[in-house]
Order: sequence, then C-alpha cells, then structure tokens
Amino acid sequence: MENNDNVIYIGDKPFMNYVTAVVMQFTSKNAEELLVRARGKYISRAVDIVEVATKRFLDGKVKPVDIRIDSEEFENKEGKRVRVSTMEIVLRKAE
Amino acid sequence: MENNDNVIYIGDKPFMNYVTAVVMQFTSKNAEELLVRARGKYISRAVDIVEVATKRFLDGKVKPVDIRIDSEEFENKEGKRVRVSTMEIVLRKAE
Repeated sequence: MENNDNVIYIGDKPFMNYVTAVVMQFTSKNAEELLVRARGKYISRAVDIVEVATKRFLDGKVKPVDIRIDSEEFENKEGKRVRVSTMEIVLRKAE
Repeated sequence: MENNDNVIYIGDKPFMNYVTAVVMQFTSKNAEELLVRARGKYISRAVDIVEVATKRFLDGKVKPVDIRIDSEEFENKEGKRVRVSTMEIVLRKAE
C-alpha cells in the first residue's frame, strides 16, 4: 500500500481539499486502504481531516486501524539539529 | 488505569512541564502505564511531548502502545455546534 496513490500528505492547502481527497480514494477510486501522513503542527490538522472525512462523509464505513507516531531529526539552515514529530494514520474500509 | 494520577492532559503550560510530568510517572512514581490526552490544536503538542519524553529522556524504555483518535461535539457560546478532535496515547513500560 506504499505506492504514492494511497498516501496523502497533510500540509497547508485548504482543509476541504484534503477531506475530499480522502473521501474520493474510498468512493470513486475504491481504495481498500489509505495512509494519511503529517509532520509537526500539521498533525492536529491531519486528525481533524480524518475525523471529518470518516465520520461526516464516509459515515463510519472507513476507520483508522493503525496510528503511528515517530520523530525525524535533520539539520536546519543554521546547522542546528532539529527534531520534528511525524504521524501516520492508516485508514481502512470496514468489513 | 483510568484514575487521574495516570492521565496527563496536554494544554498550554510550558512544554517541559509536560515532558517532566510524563518522565516522572515512569521514574519516581514507577507507573506501568500512562494515558496522554489532548484536544484540537494541542494534539500536535502531545505528540511532540510523547516523542521527547520517551526517546530523549526515557531512552526508548517506554513506548506508545495504543493511539486513538475521536471527536467531541458541543455547543459554543453562540449556540452553534462545534466539533473538536481528541487524541489519547497510551504509554507503557517496555518489557
């Protein structure tokens, strides 16, 4: 399921763009599973998007089946090591 | 595990207050399990706190074993229905 079609990265595009993208994967594209990924401050947003998409639009027929958190470290422009949290939510069609 | 001692709610106190509270539960208070809860925009912060506490301070000896997301609906002051996302992270001492 790690092909790009089945991964949605949450950033600062309009909220409903992401909700629509999630919903479409399970409706018109008939996906069984989808991975929603976010980093840093976008993690809260990813949870909002998943909640609205699955409960309001997909009517509980799609559920988060696995939620993982982790950290990435990298060097910023000033050469300082920076840590950022990451989250992955696996969404799957309910049986 | 749902007694109040073993639940930490993330809000807008200083970041390290929460990190210390999480670490202390597993060190001086010797807890086996801890529930970290957050709502709305504090969800990203809760993930940051859990990542820093478990990886930097607890050296991977405590891990998130379950992460759940949900929504709450309530009426705001203007009588409008508002939805807010919630997250719970269950931390547990590794064997």
